[in-house]
Amino acid sequence: MSVQVQIVEGPLVPTPRRKIEGAGALVEFEGIVRGQEEGRAIAALEYQVYEPMASRELVRLAEELIARHGVIEMSVEHSRGSVRVGECSFRLRVWAKHRKEALAAMDEFIDRMKRDVPIWKSAVGQ
Amino acid sequence: MSVQVQIVEGPLVPTPRRKIEGAGALVEFEGIVRGQEEGRAIAALEYQVYEPMASRELVRLAEELIARHGVIEMSVEHSRGSVRVGECSFRLRVWAKHRKEALAAMDEFIDRMKRDVPIWKSAVGQ
Repeated sequence: MSVQVQIVEGPLVPTPRRKIEGAGALVEFEGIVRGQEEGRAIAALEYQVYEPMASRELVRLAEELIARHGVIEMSVEHSRGSVRVGECSFRLRVWAKHRKEALAAMDEFIDRMKRDVPIWKSAVGQ
Repeated sequence: MSVQVQIVEGPLVPTPRRKIEGAGALVEFEGIVRGQEEGRAIAALEYQVYEPMASRELVRLAEELIARHGVIEMSVEHSRGSVRVGECSFRLRVWAKHRKEALAAMDEFIDRMKRDVPIWKSAVGQ
């Protein structure tokens, strides 16, 4: 299976990476909660994930981008609930033969996830 | 110090990641030796690194891109000597406030490293 999607309660912890046959490039993105949200100091972000639609949309998006960019595999982890400043709330891994298609698929995935996937965040003040 | 460069004998092993204050995005790239090089099956790549010039050029390049793209920090690890198929020979980490500048800095770093930094590879046949 070339797509893996996981919605995790709270912050993401490190997870082992698989070895993917034929991959010459692995690109991993981690989104980390920053101490500022729209100019205001915050303590945490609270993520609301509308399931099962969110997971279904993430799988569909990854499958589309794997095919279009010619990458080998993608894995997606996203938090739901509270994630404090400095903690990781989103992790995307892309394996490909070469770097260029991996970076292009990653960039497009994140843009479209933010636009289309039913995951909302709200700031929790300090 | 916002740039770290390491030349490592043989394949790269996983290394711990630091937490960088203010970073909202961490992007990590790993280059993995593939079983084909210019259409021929290979067993390994052999990297020759011209030191100390290579390290100096990697530091200089990272510093330039940190300033120009407005990213926070970069770390670079590169193998010298023999790295077998499936093993990692290059790792770049970029920490930034936001994703876009991290991805742009990463892409440009790798392009220019390949062009300008005195590291050469040769295939070792099967």
